Amino acid sequence: MSETVEQRLAGLGVKLPEPAAPAANYVPYVISGNLVFVSGQITMMDGELKYVGTVGDDLSTDDGYQAARICAINLMAQVKIACGGDLERVKRVVKLGGFVNCTADFTDQPKVINGASDLIGEAFGDIGKHARFAVGAPSLPLGIAVEVDGVFEIS
Amino acid sequence: MSETVEQRLAGLGVKLPEPAAPAANYVPYVISGNLVFVSGQITMMDGELKYVGTVGDDLSTDDGYQAARICAINLMAQVKIACGGDLERVKRVVKLGGFVNCTADFTDQPKVINGASDLIGEAFGDIGKHARFAVGAPSLPLGIAVEVDGVFEIS
Amino acid sequence: MSETVEQRLAGLGVKLPEPAAPAANYVPYVISGNLVFVSGQITMMDGELKYVGTVGDDLSTDDGYQAARICAINLMAQVKIACGGDLERVKRVVKLGGFVNCTADFTDQPKVINGASDLIGEAFGDIGKHARFAVGAPSLPLGIAVEVDGVFEIS
Repeated sequence: MSETVEQRLAGLGVKLPEPAAPAANYVPYVISGNLVFVSGQITMMDGELKYVGTVGDDLSTDDGYQAARICAINLMAQVKIACGGDLERVKRVVKLGGFVNCTADFTDQPKVINGASDLIGEAFGDIGKHARFAVGAPSLPLGIAVEVDGVFEIS
Repeated sequence: MSETVEQRLAGLGVKLPEPAAPAANYVPYVISGNLVFVSGQITMMDGELKYVGTVGDDLSTDDGYQAARICAINLMAQVKIACGGDLERVKRVVKLGGFVNCTADFTDQPKVINGASDLIGEAFGDIGKHARFAVGAPSLPLGIAVEVDGVFEIS
Repeated sequence: MSETVEQRLAGLGVKLPEPAAPAANYVPYVISGNLVFVSGQITMMDGELKYVGTVGDDLSTDDGYQAARICAINLMAQVKIACGGDLERVKRVVKLGGFVNCTADFTDQPKVINGASDLIGEAFGDIGKHARFAVGAPSLPLGIAVEVDGVFEIS
């Protein structure tokens, strides 16, 4: 693949946002050695919170998939900043941690978190294949449907 | 201890399965530096899903313990592949993350996740002593009782 | 800042406890390379379990904040031991994982986990700014309100 990650994202209609840096005691990412640990990302897009609700109740599995996709976009936006703007410095997507705000009888957390895994796989190709977990949560910050954090290896 | 990890497992009656590699955008493990990040493992054994249910409701704490033990077997099976078949390359079991599908009044998550910690401790001895968390979840993939992921240091 | 971490903690009225080492197959922390992985810490203080309950039900957001603060104290106490008693060896607080025992309609997990992030930020200054996630859980070990684990980089 000779396209860059951002070119592939553009081909998928995805433009990475420029997230504001939170002025708090926690930060969007920390670099330690050649690993970037990215904070749990939420379903904020274009300044609006999307997919507020509970999968298995007022939101469907496909809603959850789309919510996870937004989390992945925000993860990549943070990693881009961690890389000084150049996502080609990513050597491997190491791990995603996926939390799904869902009912107690919902069992398709993997299908929901695929929304993040699929986009990152399409964007990064082979180096985008990552370890992950996908679990349920009774509730998430601001009522969002999905939260995803990540670990990335960069050069 | 002059026995190998697999010999100790055999002494415990445990034979590691050969898990199929999922053809998806996520993978069972990723190696970064000398760390292996293993995806959340489920209660699949001999091609069958075991311990589907909720601890504190239709499943007991001991059921949960047994479920966590299966997750640990699957974790070790993945690490074995990551090590090219030689578990003696494991230098340290670094961390387990344990999620227990349980009721809101269940408070023995540590006793459940001990099912994974104990087996890994018996298999690896001193280098098997790991950091971990043990938390509740309202639901897990496919309705399983326990999901455990892990980080391992290898040579 | 010329004060040490422990001097800053003392200025905040915080004295780190000397936690007992659990005699189990899991341990409070594991050092791998220059990373310390600390096990999920609970709300134990002065030998007593504090803040047992559910945020959004019998406990308030501020109760949760105080519970998270205790978890942070215990995290730092473990890291101090990992550093052979010298917290100045901490080069960066890398990541906190925050679990809040809460109701399904509680959405202020970040405000709760700020109890950990704020104290660690005050104690460590710039190197205390960390990545994190903050999620809900239906229940936690022993019924506590908050559990927090962490990754720290040391020299």
